[in-house]
Amino acid sequence: MARRIRYAMVGGGRGAFIGGVHRMAARLDDRFELVAGALASDPARAIESAADLGIRGYPDFAAMIAGEAARPDGAEAVSIVTPNHMHHAPAKAALEAGFDVICDKPLALTVAEAEDLVETVRRTGRVFVLTHNYSGHPMVRQARAMVAAGELGAIRVVQVEYPQDWLSTKLEDTGQKQAGWRTDPARAGLGGSLGDLGTHAHHLAEFVTGLRVESVLADLQSFVEGRPVDDNAQLLLRFAGGARGMLWSSQVAPGNENALRLRVYAEKGGLAWSQEHPNQLLHTPLGEAPRVLARAVGALHPAAGHATRIPAGHPEGYLEAFAQLYRDAAEQIAARREGRAPDPLCCATPTVEDGLRGMRFVAAAVASSRAGGAWTPV
Amino acid sequence: MARRIRYAMVGGGRGAFIGGVHRMAARLDDRFELVAGALASDPARAIESAADLGIRGYPDFAAMIAGEAARPDGAEAVSIVTPNHMHHAPAKAALEAGFDVICDKPLALTVAEAEDLVETVRRTGRVFVLTHNYSGHPMVRQARAMVAAGELGAIRVVQVEYPQDWLSTKLEDTGQKQAGWRTDPARAGLGGSLGDLGTHAHHLAEFVTGLRVESVLADLQSFVEGRPVDDNAQLLLRFAGGARGMLWSSQVAPGNENALRLRVYAEKGGLAWSQEHPNQLLHTPLGEAPRVLARAVGALHPAAGHATRIPAGHPEGYLEAFAQLYRDAAEQIAARREGRAPDPLCCATPTVEDGLRGMRFVAAAVASSRAGGAWTPV
Amino acid sequence: MARRIRYAMVGGGRGAFIGGVHRMAARLDDRFELVAGALASDPARAIESAADLGIRGYPDFAAMIAGEAARPDGAEAVSIVTPNHMHHAPAKAALEAGFDVICDKPLALTVAEAEDLVETVRRTGRVFVLTHNYSGHPMVRQARAMVAAGELGAIRVVQVEYPQDWLSTKLEDTGQKQAGWRTDPARAGLGGSLGDLGTHAHHLAEFVTGLRVESVLADLQSFVEGRPVDDNAQLLLRFAGGARGMLWSSQVAPGNENALRLRVYAEKGGLAWSQEHPNQLLHTPLGEAPRVLARAVGALHPAAGHATRIPAGHPEGYLEAFAQLYRDAAEQIAARREGRAPDPLCCATPTVEDGLRGMRFVAAAVASSRAGGAWTPV
Amino acid sequence: MARRIRYAMVGGGRGAFIGGVHRMAARLDDRFELVAGALASDPARAIESAADLGIRGYPDFAAMIAGEAARPDGAEAVSIVTPNHMHHAPAKAALEAGFDVICDKPLALTVAEAEDLVETVRRTGRVFVLTHNYSGHPMVRQARAMVAAGELGAIRVVQVEYPQDWLSTKLEDTGQKQAGWRTDPARAGLGGSLGDLGTHAHHLAEFVTGLRVESVLADLQSFVEGRPVDDNAQLLLRFAGGARGMLWSSQVAPGNENALRLRVYAEKGGLAWSQEHPNQLLHTPLGEAPRVLARAVGALHPAAGHATRIPAGHPEGYLEAFAQLYRDAAEQIAARREGRAPDPLCCATPTVEDGLRGMRFVAAAVASSRAGGAWTPV
Repeated sequence: MARRIRYAMVGGGRGAFIGGVHRMAARLDDRFELVAGALASDPARAIESAADLGIRGYPDFAAMIAGEAARPDGAEAVSIVTPNHMHHAPAKAALEAGFDVICDKPLALTVAEAEDLVETVRRTGRVFVLTHNYSGHPMVRQARAMVAAGELGAIRVVQVEYPQDWLSTKLEDTGQKQAGWRTDPARAGLGGSLGDLGTHAHHLAEFVTGLRVESVLADLQSFVEGRPVDDNAQLLLRFAGGARGMLWSSQVAPGNENALRLRVYAEKGGLAWSQEHPNQLLHTPLGEAPRVLARAVGALHPAAGHATRIPAGHPEGYLEAFAQLYRDAAEQIAARREGRAPDPLCCATPTVEDGLRGMRFVAAAVASSRAGGAWTPV
Repeated sequence: MARRIRYAMVGGGRGAFIGGVHRMAARLDDRFELVAGALASDPARAIESAADLGIRGYPDFAAMIAGEAARPDGAEAVSIVTPNHMHHAPAKAALEAGFDVICDKPLALTVAEAEDLVETVRRTGRVFVLTHNYSGHPMVRQARAMVAAGELGAIRVVQVEYPQDWLSTKLEDTGQKQAGWRTDPARAGLGGSLGDLGTHAHHLAEFVTGLRVESVLADLQSFVEGRPVDDNAQLLLRFAGGARGMLWSSQVAPGNENALRLRVYAEKGGLAWSQEHPNQLLHTPLGEAPRVLARAVGALHPAAGHATRIPAGHPEGYLEAFAQLYRDAAEQIAARREGRAPDPLCCATPTVEDGLRGMRFVAAAVASSRAGGAWTPV
Repeated sequence: MARRIRYAMVGGGRGAFIGGVHRMAARLDDRFELVAGALASDPARAIESAADLGIRGYPDFAAMIAGEAARPDGAEAVSIVTPNHMHHAPAKAALEAGFDVICDKPLALTVAEAEDLVETVRRTGRVFVLTHNYSGHPMVRQARAMVAAGELGAIRVVQVEYPQDWLSTKLEDTGQKQAGWRTDPARAGLGGSLGDLGTHAHHLAEFVTGLRVESVLADLQSFVEGRPVDDNAQLLLRFAGGARGMLWSSQVAPGNENALRLRVYAEKGGLAWSQEHPNQLLHTPLGEAPRVLARAVGALHPAAGHATRIPAGHPEGYLEAFAQLYRDAAEQIAARREGRAPDPLCCATPTVEDGLRGMRFVAAAVASSRAGGAWTPV
Repeated sequence: MARRIRYAMVGGGRGAFIGGVHRMAARLDDRFELVAGALASDPARAIESAADLGIRGYPDFAAMIAGEAARPDGAEAVSIVTPNHMHHAPAKAALEAGFDVICDKPLALTVAEAEDLVETVRRTGRVFVLTHNYSGHPMVRQARAMVAAGELGAIRVVQVEYPQDWLSTKLEDTGQKQAGWRTDPARAGLGGSLGDLGTHAHHLAEFVTGLRVESVLADLQSFVEGRPVDDNAQLLLRFAGGARGMLWSSQVAPGNENALRLRVYAEKGGLAWSQEHPNQLLHTPLGEAPRVLARAVGALHPAAGHATRIPAGHPEGYLEAFAQLYRDAAEQIAARREGRAPDPLCCATPTVEDGLRGMRFVAAAVASSRAGGAWTPV
C-alpha cells in the first residue's frame, strides 16, 4: 500500500459543513491521514475541535504551519476549508512553508488574491488542488474525454446552470451560519450565488469542453430584500473559438437543491450531465438514438474508469467525486516528493489557474451587470 | 350536439406539414367541418389538393374568400396555415369579409403587419385565434391558473427554452421544403429559431405567468455557415414587475426534438413543464416535497379539466392540445354569432395582441443582438 | 381522399366513457363517419343519446342492425363499446348481417362466447378488430418489428404489468357507473382487474414478442372487502418456446393511473415501454449503452412510421393509438369490399383469435388461483 | 471523538470485490480501524494481501482469531467477506472467541448453518450485523419509518425486483472469478440469482414493510445452458397478515445493472424506491399528487436523518449506505462493551435472524420450483 500522506486542516471545526466532507473524502481511499488542525477562527474552539478529532490542535493557521513544519512527523499537506476570505492567507503561508495545498473553492476573495496565489504556486512548485469537486465524477471525466477525443466535433452551445432554493427567504437573518457568511461580501466576495454556485458551473463548463469563457454578459439580482450580494445570476457566455453559452445560478429557485446541470451541443452530437444523478451521461449523437452512458458500463474512456471505485449500477455520489480529487492529489504529491511525473490520469484536478479564471469570471460578471449588461472580457 | 362550424383553409396542400395538423385538430372534437380551401400558392396544386380532400377548391385565397362569402352554405371561419409571409394578407381579407380567423404563428412577417392585424381584428370584431398550440395543454392551463390564483406568490425567475436539432446541418440546401422557408428571411421574417421557436417560448412564458416581457437582451447566432437567420438564440429577459428570465431557442442542439420547457420560480414555490411529457406538471412548494401534478388526477383547477378529454394516465399529446384551441375557438365563434358572452374557460386562446407582442419580441431581440447586446424594450 | 366508411355504434351513450373515445379515434384520421347508434340499454336513453350526436337513433342493437342493413346509405361497419356482457350478441348479429365489426375488449363474457365469435368471424369473412388499443402505438409496433426481425435474439423473460389505483376504495358502492359494472361478474366476467387490465397486458406481451402464453399460475385477490372479483392479480407465465414471465394487474395500487409497462429481455438485448410515456422505447443491447428510441427519430421500422401522424418530439398519445386501429380497420374494410389484399402494415390489429386467447387466459388464471396456485394451460 | 474499533477481515484479498467495499465503508465514518486479516483462502496470498494493506497477515481465519484474541491491542471485531460457503465457519469461530461480527450476505451456505449461527449469536451475546447494505440508505430508512408510523395504512401489495445482466452469457467459463463462485452451488448455495439478488430483495421487502414472507411460489430457470443454479427467479409471495407480493431476480436481463426496486402499495398510499437513484423516494398518497421525497429535504423521519451525511441534493450512494451499517455496528459494539443500550436509531441493521429467514426463503423457493410450483412455507 502506498504510504498515507499526513495532512493538516484549516477550518472545518465544530458547526462547519465542508470540513467534514473533506475529511470523509480524504479518508475514503486511505491515501491521507489527518494529523493536525487549526479548525476554527476562535482559538479556544480551534483547540477543542481538534480534540474532538483526536488530532494536534493549534489556535491558528500560522501556529499550525510553524508547528507542523518543525516536526519530522508533521503534516505534509494542508487542506483549507474556511470561508472564502480565509483562503488566501493560509494557502500562501502553507505554500511558502513547503506544504502541498488542497483548497476549497472559490479560490479567494478577490482577483488580486487569486493572482498572488497563482504566482506563489508557480514559484514554490507545490501541488495545488482546488476542490471544484464535480470534476471528480467519472461521467464528467468521460464527457471531457469524449470532447477531447473529438467525438462531438466543434462545440457550438454550452448551457450550464446551478440552481438551489435554500436562500429563498432571508435565512441569514436567523443566525444560520452558512447563510451568514455566504451572503456577506466581506467573507464571500463580490458574488453571492455567482461566487458559490456560478464558479462551479463556470469550471464545469470549461473542464468538460476544454474551452475558455472569453467574455460574459450578466444580469445579477438580489430577490430577497436587503441581501447585499446576488441570489440569482443570469449570464450569456462567449467562449474562445466561437461557442456560445448561458449560465444560470440561483439560490431562490424552489425545488432545486443542488441542480447543477451541464449540456453541451456540438456539430456531431450533444452531452448532458446532471449532478443529482451523476452516474449517467446522456450522449446524443446527431441523427441517432440518444444513449445513456453509465459509470462502468460498456466502453468508456480510461479517464472514467480511473475515477470509479465500484461496479456499474451501484451509485457513486458526491463524496466519491470529492474523494477523487484527494486521490488524484495524493498521486501528484507522491510524484512531486519522489521527483517523478504523476500518472497523467491523476492530473485532471482543478488548478490554481482555474481558480483565478473563476475569480475573473465573477468579477467580469459583476462589472457587466453593474454596467447595465455589457459584454465584458474575463 | 352543437352545430359544426364550416371552415376553409389557406395553405396546407400537398407536401405541407402544419395544415394536416390543423385539420386533425379541428376534427377531433367535431366542432368544425372543412368545406373549402386555397391550399397552395400554385393555383393548379391548390385545386388538386382540394380535390384530394374532397372539398371546394380555389386557386387563391382571394377567390376563396369571395366564393365562400357568396354561398349561403359557405365557410364561416378561415384557417391560415401558410408560411409566415402569407399570414397577413389572407387574415386581413378574411376578417374584412366577416370571417372568423384561426391563424398559425408567428402572427406575421413584420411588426407593421402584426399591428395592422390587431387593428383589423378590433375593427371587425371577429374572433381571432393564434395557434400557439402549447397553451392548449391541460397542465399548461393548470400552471396558469395556479399562478393566477396566487399559489406561487410573486414570480422571480422564468427559465424557458425550446431547442431542436433538425437544422444542425444545412438541410435547406437539400431541397427540404420546411427547412427552405424557415431559414429564408423573406418568408420567415427576421427570426430563424427565434421566430419559429422563440415566439412559442415567449408566448408560453407570458401565458403561464401572466407577466409581460418588458425588455430583452439577445445574442443570436447562425452556427451553420451561410444561414441568413439565427439558428441559435440566447436571451436575457426582464418582465414587468421585476421578474427576470432566460430564453433559449435553438435548431442546432443534437438530441433535442421539440424540447420546449418552462420553469417558473416564485416566492412560494416553483413549476416545471415539459412539452415532450405534457401530462405532468412539477410543482415544488418551497420547503416541501415536490409534487407531480398530472392531468385529471386529484384536485386541479377547472381550467385544466376544461382542456381534458380522457381520464388520468392515458396520455394526451400535441394534437389534443392543438384541438383545444379549435374547440375553444368554436365556442367563441358560436357565442359571437349568438350574441352572447363565451364560456370564460374558452377564452384562454392566444390573441392577435399576443401575436403582436411576439413580433415585437423578435424585433427587439434582433435589434439587441445587432447592437452587440443591449437591453432593448419590447 | 379515400371514401369514409359509414359506421354505427352499440353503446357509448350519455354517461359512458369508452364510446366517446372510439368516436374521437374514428374521427381523427377521417376514414369513418358515424351515422347511427343504439347507444344505451335503455331504449329512451338510446334514442336521446343519438339525438345528442345528430345520428340515426335506434332503441336496441337488433333494430339498428335491421334498420341499417336495409338502407342503401346505411352503416357498413359496427362499433361495439358496451360492457363485456354485451359484446357477443351485437357482434354476432352484426357479423351475420354482413357488417364489419370493431369491438372493445375483452372480447366477451365467457370463453364459449369468444369461441362462437371466432367461428362467426371465420364463417362470415368479415373484418373484426378488437380494440386492444395499446397495440396502435408507434413504439409498440417498433418493438414488435424489432423482435420479429431477430434484433433481440431468443426471448427469455417478459415482465408486464398494468396497475391502477381507482378501486382502492369501494367506489362501486357510491353509484359510480364504471366501477359498478367492472366489479360485477355478471357484466364484467370472471376477471376484475384481470379482465379489464390483465387482458391488455396479456395481449401486449404476445403482440410484441410474437410468443404465446402457454400456461399460467395465478394468485388473485380482492383486497376491498366484499368485492366479488379480483382487484389485484399476480401471475407467473410460461410462453411456448421456453420464455418465462410475470404479469401483475391491480386496481388498488395508489399512485398508478394507467401504468401499463412491458419489459422484454432476450439473448441479445432488452426492450422497455411504458404506456404513460408512449413515444419512447428503451432499447438495451447487451453490453452497450441503452438507447432511447423515439417516435419518428432516426432509423425505425416501417411499422412504426406507419402508425405515426406527426413529427418527432411532438407527443402522440392514447387517442392517436386508438385511432391507429380505426385507420388500419378502414384499410382492411376497404380492401375486403374491393376484393384485394390489404396493406400488410394495416394488418397488425388485434384479432378475434387474440380475443379468444385473452378469454382463455382469464379463465385459466381464475382456475389456477382457485386451485390454490397451479400451473394451468391457457 | 469516539475511539475507533479495531477490526480484522476474513476474505477480501487481491482480486476480490466486496472486501474493498467493506473497507471503504468502514473507513468513511472513521469508527473502525483495520488491523489484521486472513484475506485469502491461499495462505501465501493471504499474507501478501495483508502486506498490501499494511496490516497483520494470517494464513487462515483460525490463526487470525487465535492471534488477535491473544493480543491486548488485537482486533475487537471481525468482518467476513468471503464467498457464501465460507461464512459460517469463521463467523462461528469469531463469535465463540468473543469477537463481534459483521458478515456479508447471504448468511450462510445452508439453512442448517444459518440456524447454527443464530444459536451462536444468541448464546455468545455478540453483535452480529449482516450487510444487506441497501437497508442503510436514508430513504429506505424513511420508507420503513413511514410504514411503521402507519402513514400508509395496511399493506396490500409488495412488488420487488432485482435484475442484472452480467450473466447473460456464460461468463463463468471465461475464468471470471465472481461469476465462477456465484454460479457454483458448492460455494454459492442452492440459489443463483436468488441467493445473490433475491435475498437482498427479500430482506428489503421485509425491512421496509415490517411484514414477514410466510410462503412462496417460485419458478426458477437457468437460461444459460449448463448453468447449475438459477439465473432468473420469479416468485409469488404471501406475507403474514394477508399482503401479496411478487419478487423477480435475474442475471440475464440486458440493460439492468443493479436495478433493485421496491414498490409497496397500501390502503392509504404507496411508496417506490430504486437503488440506482437512492436519494429519492416516491410517495403516492391515495387521491393526491405523488410526492418526490428526497434525502435531507423537508420533514423526514429521524431514521432518515440518522443515516445521512451530507446536505440535500448532493447524492449519496452505495458506499454511504454500506458505511451506515458499519457506523451503526460501531455504536452497537461500543454499547455492548460499555454495558449500555445502544442508540435505538442504530439498531436497524440486518440481524442474524434476518439472515436465517433469507436462507429459508431461498430453500423454500427452490423447493417450490422443484415441486413444479407449489405454495411453500418459509
